[in-house]
Amino acid sequence: VLNLTILGTGSATPILLRNPSAQVLSNEYESYLIDCGEGTQNQLIKYKIKTNKIKHIFISHLHGDHFFGLIGLLSSFNLAHRTEPLTIFGPKGLDDIITIQLKYSGTFLHFKLTFTAINTTIDEVIVENEIIKITTIPLIHRIPCCGFLFEKKPKNRNIIKGKINEHFSIEEIKQLKEGKNVLHEDLSIKYSVETHTKAHSSAKYAYCSDTAFNEQIIPQIEKVDLLYHEATFKEDLIGRAAVTFHSTAMQAAKIAKSANVNKLLIGHFSSRYIDLDENLAEAKSIFTNTEIAIEGNQYEIGN
Amino acid sequence: VLNLTILGTGSATPILLRNPSAQVLSNEYESYLIDCGEGTQNQLIKYKIKTNKIKHIFISHLHGDHFFGLIGLLSSFNLAHRTEPLTIFGPKGLDDIITIQLKYSGTFLHFKLTFTAINTTIDEVIVENEIIKITTIPLIHRIPCCGFLFEKKPKNRNIIKGKINEHFSIEEIKQLKEGKNVLHEDLSIKYSVETHTKAHSSAKYAYCSDTAFNEQIIPQIEKVDLLYHEATFKEDLIGRAAVTFHSTAMQAAKIAKSANVNKLLIGHFSSRYIDLDENLAEAKSIFTNTEIAIEGNQYEIGN
Repeated sequence: VLNLTILGTGSATPILLRNPSAQVLSNEYESYLIDCGEGTQNQLIKYKIKTNKIKHIFISHLHGDHFFGLIGLLSSFNLAHRTEPLTIFGPKGLDDIITIQLKYSGTFLHFKLTFTAINTTIDEVIVENEIIKITTIPLIHRIPCCGFLFEKKPKNRNIIKGKINEHFSIEEIKQLKEGKNVLHEDLSIKYSVETHTKAHSSAKYAYCSDTAFNEQIIPQIEKVDLLYHEATFKEDLIGRAAVTFHSTAMQAAKIAKSANVNKLLIGHFSSRYIDLDENLAEAKSIFTNTEIAIEGNQYEIGN
Repeated sequence: VLNLTILGTGSATPILLRNPSAQVLSNEYESYLIDCGEGTQNQLIKYKIKTNKIKHIFISHLHGDHFFGLIGLLSSFNLAHRTEPLTIFGPKGLDDIITIQLKYSGTFLHFKLTFTAINTTIDEVIVENEIIKITTIPLIHRIPCCGFLFEKKPKNRNIIKGKINEHFSIEEIKQLKEGKNVLHEDLSIKYSVETHTKAHSSAKYAYCSDTAFNEQIIPQIEKVDLLYHEATFKEDLIGRAAVTFHSTAMQAAKIAKSANVNKLLIGHFSSRYIDLDENLAEAKSIFTNTEIAIEGNQYEIGN
């Protein structure tokens, strides 16, 4: 299971109702901060997110509503005596922006900060460990921009209910969970992993903001459990969406439908929309299992 | 009269209760933004401040809680199609920090932005026009830092009540208000400016954040109508104040008393203080006319 907490659902023009883009995705071990608009550190405090679990930050592109909160967050991590290393993934240039501000403020970080420039034009695995695989999703925007695909790896197999009893030793159960058959001394199979366990299903989350309508992403995000797709405009402003390289709610839904995803979450709403009922209705007319992203809400991904 | 609106009363470590440093000082014609911590643009929206009146921004120093909101504010000015020119005064380096972020975000400003680097080690007039004179106040902090002294100039003299009647022409009243005697044809005095008008008293405001206890500022801020002085700590942490180059509430009050100011406003409170009654009591034990700065409150300066 992955857990997603939405911290911001607004777009570039600030309104008090919404914060700029930021989300936290968590598993049992780690959290991933995705984009970091101005005020994200306040949202992290408000929703009581454990920041020590955040070891990676992903910045989709260098428009301010997606990264102006990063330098403040790093400064506050430092004030709070963070020692946990941190890696930032983002377009080239973000390292210069951070470095110059640390320099002039006389800030010396107590934790190791690594910056990895990402190539936003290709899909590329940028993190892979025992827990997760994270891949960039090339998006089409006014400046270099990419989304991120998070694929949680199954940790252990699940025991099938009723298939074990008190005669099984702890060691035998552990072997089965790890995906190994339990063998007799003559190496014949005592308990088969196939009959006693089932694999964890994977949890897949795709984050796509900001982007023009772009069907090229469909193969990469096919059948994800949850797709977050920007939906800056309603359909009547499809022309405005095109020139600003953003999407409408219906376009987001078309991508969700074509990619056969389980659920669609839409966000990054233009400040012109206060009530979002029509935005949701437009998306639902194409793809029923759509929800409006709500700040502070948690979404469970996979099982 | 000058009107001061407090937008932030916190210090470096963020808490939801307080915003980082920012204030707006206004007269009939212009507003001045003093410091601009993260989230200042939201505070401007929240307290309905007219940002078109802001033609000058003053940044005291390059610690993040005093300037991390500046780039977001400039971006939002641009999104809102601002055309009014803007001048920023701040320590050297701030221009580089702004420029690099505008560059990578692909932002081309529609308004003229001028940056003036200030020398924080001397008191120097940085703005002077018919309305106001603004002078830097050298402060002692961990990095280059200065305060700002705002002196509103009297625009016109006030007519003394009952001293004119319907026989005065509009031209005669105008002359008196401009400080000129009204003369007979033989150049003898018809109505004396001294007997018919009184001068506007000046309005003086001094902003001093962040600073170690520094008695050298006293002559410069003598008899100001309002002094804002940082008071990060209570007296029991006077040692911590010294090593971090901050002040205690009592130290702020000592400065106010020695400078014989009319009123003291204290702010920039450490996140360790939730209730500020003791901080206020400590200051009042030295200087009675002290108030805690409260976000959203307006303070009238001069008359």
